[in-house]
Amino acid sequence: FEIASFLQGLDLVFLALPHGKSAPLAKEIYERDIRIIDLGADFRIKDSEAYEHWYELEHSCPALLAESVYGLPEIHKNEISRAKILANPGCYPTSIILGLAPLLVNKVISNENIIIDSKSGVSGAGKTLTEITHYSNINENLLAYKVGNHRHIAEIEQELGFLGKTEVVINFTPHLIPMNRGILSSIYVTPVVDVTQKDLDELYQEFYKTCPFIRLRDKSSLPQTKWVQGSNYCDIAPIFDERTGKIMVFSAIDNLVKGASGQAIQNMNIMFGLEETSGLKLAGMYP
Amino acid sequence: FEIASFLQGLDLVFLALPHGKSAPLAKEIYERDIRIIDLGADFRIKDSEAYEHWYELEHSCPALLAESVYGLPEIHKNEISRAKILANPGCYPTSIILGLAPLLVNKVISNENIIIDSKSGVSGAGKTLTEITHYSNINENLLAYKVGNHRHIAEIEQELGFLGKTEVVINFTPHLIPMNRGILSSIYVTPVVDVTQKDLDELYQEFYKTCPFIRLRDKSSLPQTKWVQGSNYCDIAPIFDERTGKIMVFSAIDNLVKGASGQAIQNMNIMFGLEETSGLKLAGMYP
Amino acid sequence: FEIASFLQGLDLVFLALPHGKSAPLAKEIYERDIRIIDLGADFRIKDSEAYEHWYELEHSCPALLAESVYGLPEIHKNEISRAKILANPGCYPTSIILGLAPLLVNKVISNENIIIDSKSGVSGAGKTLTEITHYSNINENLLAYKVGNHRHIAEIEQELGFLGKTEVVINFTPHLIPMNRGILSSIYVTPVVDVTQKDLDELYQEFYKTCPFIRLRDKSSLPQTKWVQGSNYCDIAPIFDERTGKIMVFSAIDNLVKGASGQAIQNMNIMFGLEETSGLKLAGMYP
Amino acid sequence: FEIASFLQGLDLVFLALPHGKSAPLAKEIYERDIRIIDLGADFRIKDSEAYEHWYELEHSCPALLAESVYGLPEIHKNEISRAKILANPGCYPTSIILGLAPLLVNKVISNENIIIDSKSGVSGAGKTLTEITHYSNINENLLAYKVGNHRHIAEIEQELGFLGKTEVVINFTPHLIPMNRGILSSIYVTPVVDVTQKDLDELYQEFYKTCPFIRLRDKSSLPQTKWVQGSNYCDIAPIFDERTGKIMVFSAIDNLVKGASGQAIQNMNIMFGLEETSGLKLAGMYP
Repeated sequence: FEIASFLQGLDLVFLALPHGKSAPLAKEIYERDIRIIDLGADFRIKDSEAYEHWYELEHSCPALLAESVYGLPEIHKNEISRAKILANPGCYPTSIILGLAPLLVNKVISNENIIIDSKSGVSGAGKTLTEITHYSNINENLLAYKVGNHRHIAEIEQELGFLGKTEVVINFTPHLIPMNRGILSSIYVTPVVDVTQKDLDELYQEFYKTCPFIRLRDKSSLPQTKWVQGSNYCDIAPIFDERTGKIMVFSAIDNLVKGASGQAIQNMNIMFGLEETSGLKLAGMYP
Repeated sequence: FEIASFLQGLDLVFLALPHGKSAPLAKEIYERDIRIIDLGADFRIKDSEAYEHWYELEHSCPALLAESVYGLPEIHKNEISRAKILANPGCYPTSIILGLAPLLVNKVISNENIIIDSKSGVSGAGKTLTEITHYSNINENLLAYKVGNHRHIAEIEQELGFLGKTEVVINFTPHLIPMNRGILSSIYVTPVVDVTQKDLDELYQEFYKTCPFIRLRDKSSLPQTKWVQGSNYCDIAPIFDERTGKIMVFSAIDNLVKGASGQAIQNMNIMFGLEETSGLKLAGMYP
Repeated sequence: FEIASFLQGLDLVFLALPHGKSAPLAKEIYERDIRIIDLGADFRIKDSEAYEHWYELEHSCPALLAESVYGLPEIHKNEISRAKILANPGCYPTSIILGLAPLLVNKVISNENIIIDSKSGVSGAGKTLTEITHYSNINENLLAYKVGNHRHIAEIEQELGFLGKTEVVINFTPHLIPMNRGILSSIYVTPVVDVTQKDLDELYQEFYKTCPFIRLRDKSSLPQTKWVQGSNYCDIAPIFDERTGKIMVFSAIDNLVKGASGQAIQNMNIMFGLEETSGLKLAGMYP
Repeated sequence: FEIASFLQGLDLVFLALPHGKSAPLAKEIYERDIRIIDLGADFRIKDSEAYEHWYELEHSCPALLAESVYGLPEIHKNEISRAKILANPGCYPTSIILGLAPLLVNKVISNENIIIDSKSGVSGAGKTLTEITHYSNINENLLAYKVGNHRHIAEIEQELGFLGKTEVVINFTPHLIPMNRGILSSIYVTPVVDVTQKDLDELYQEFYKTCPFIRLRDKSSLPQTKWVQGSNYCDIAPIFDERTGKIMVFSAIDNLVKGASGQAIQNMNIMFGLEETSGLKLAGMYP
């Protein structure tokens, strides 16, 4: 494999590699002035020490982290359009950051007591053969895993902190669900200002009014993973619970589309001045 | 159907009826001095006004509520042994109350910010034909439902309040999962005293040391619904998250056994002085 | 609903109606010289008596049956291009007729002892709420249904008879499988000439060499419904069992695409001189 | 592991080992005059050459094959009661032999054109991690496997030949189904005598009248794997198709109970003069 000849004439390289494998390759590509969309984790964490803490690995080119852009188009569209190195977000973070962004930017919620309970289909666990992904073990089963130490915490806290302009600490608990595709994040937060359901609805509509892949839902149409299966949509419902005073946000994506390669295409479209929805106008698959 | 002759010579009647249907029948049975285990909701809520609020129905014999015992054997064993009318708990409440009892009784946690995210297999939704329980709709799907207004909130808050000797308000969100059986409740609470993982483990071991159907788990063996499938076990893991300072409790039951008829048998055993585990020594079914 | 104004200016109408409902509507449309693709059963059976026998219903416009074309493009492409009324095939028949056509046309097999064991996902049973399609009943379950009297027998025998130029009687047994989409037909037949695996492979390659949606498989890559899920492909593997002297054919489709609307689009493309694969170049969805 | 001390005082040893591993161990146990129930394949095939052909392995103690009894209690009850070495049948063979026995013994069907299409849940494929048993691959999927060469063919043909007192060659095709447990065998055969549905029903009732684990079904209650899940039952429906003249038999078991350890317990009961149903009076689990 002769990388020089392989890269000849390319405008863009997609990298889809385990963490630690992308960074050195990205450096070579970057030096040839070719743009990069990295679907792995190596350029998502801006702080190389945080990367090293969560991924237990020294970063091979920390200088490039300043160059990289976190590729969540609904948040960082302008930077994405100019990005040389784009870090495509993780699947859980996509569903969570999109669910919370309007509340943090508008300072509606406390940066404490943020509880995130996420549920993912088995494709999120990858192709590797493991005990828990054997059909007989996970079919008709359900469990939490990596409680308190899932690596996606790093990028979620980084981006929520950026949006809220304050340090944010989250409780993030992923669960494995007996289905192929889909993530539903159920998020529980505490308002610091007076708020009504109407306020929430208007806030989210305003925040996402130019975003073609965000569909807002309400209590009568709570997000279902099936409704986004095979599509690049993120369905979000912010709900105010009058009885308890809490805000709940439900956010659903297809982890393999908006949570991975679909979002990578969306980012490419923005980077190259194409229509944002090119190649992504899929209604999804039902059932 | 001639009830008088039907009841002739009975020691115990199990009632498994929709709410509102048990109460009048129970009254007739009670007056004949026959003991009752009601698997429905009519005798779970001690406060008839709360019952009427949550079930949108006037209670037909509120005087009997004082007679009834909430049939969670790990909490109310003595009262159960003498109960004339036993209210068998709901499936979600069983998993949740058992998960939180040691923390509330020992005043380890705040009665605020109690977040409960429960996940149930489809048998919990009953046999009635509905859109969402059609196979094509719920298979490969996942959603929250009855957000903020599930009727089980009433009995959960009643029992948690009793345990903590203070009013408790919870955020309870049930989710429907594409599997037949099983409930996993993921519970997020805030300690009010200094606590370590070791403290939690010891607290739960002490609290449940005489309970044959409680199995304590830890971070390396988080509860899975498959491990309790077909059995009367409740598997519980209390986890302290040092990074965030929160306590998480994961609690798994088979909703049709410990969450329904298995628990009814356990209650019958206690009411009639039989061995608590009689007829319930099932390892469950794997896979 | 004013049909005259609705039909104004149309070139084609797709009908997707229960049997008995299409025929009268189709007559009105046909008389306005608008072409029709009927996804229902009303125009599949050429013999109105057979239709009435299998569907227990008098046909409302038997004269139009002579006009209709059975829309299996791999078999009837020329007639389809000129069709005024196109009967889009059933899902089971598509998988079965495509599996057997090369053997019947080339007179390789007996018209007796044709055993067809088909397995279908639950979407094939429709959206109607029924006991057996309740999640709790069909999940983790498997059964044969409509044994010996499924209505698709009529169109399968009609088309196999046409292909083999002789009467064909089949044993067809459908089974319901706990998955959303997909049909696998396992077909067992008896050769009447000497045959080898190599002969079979060449026969099928020759027969389907111009068919963009047929993919031939072999013993090392037996058809899986997942490989055709979300696509218009029909994957077929003819296998000769030397030990027993039988031929087996395995044929897989997505019942909602090649077995329904995808095939309707393919037929439209042919009827209107478009590229046969327009709008259908989908790789499918994995997993 | 000191086998001599381990065997001290035992009346019976259950062996559950890969083929080739049981035989040498069984020899040691047999020589100590301890009875054996082998859940593996080493003693199922009476003809050591056939064993060596199908299992590609030389048998380590062919002399013992004459001692072994094929442990299908509904067929070989007398021999089982005296067996020193009992070969517990395979899961597919149990469902198939029980489905066909009444027809073969009563010489109702031809020994040719026996088509057996079996469908098994994933637990039948074992615990080993393989590509096809990864959840993402087999969930929402369906395929035939080991077409024409599954090792169970050997014991099925042996036992069917014994029952029919003639050589029997079968076409046996196993399929993998996205569920945990259960086998449904759909069997297609040709009568050689005049037969009616009533004849078939009477024949099966007579044949199985003393068998506690056989439940006969009919066209209105075709066997479902869910109905036998977790139980030792074999549900069988013989169906005569008047239109085609064929007989179809549907036979369902739980592959892990009647197809494995439940049948082993049933055999033990018979070997030791216990009630045949001891420890096996389970209704199963629904849903």
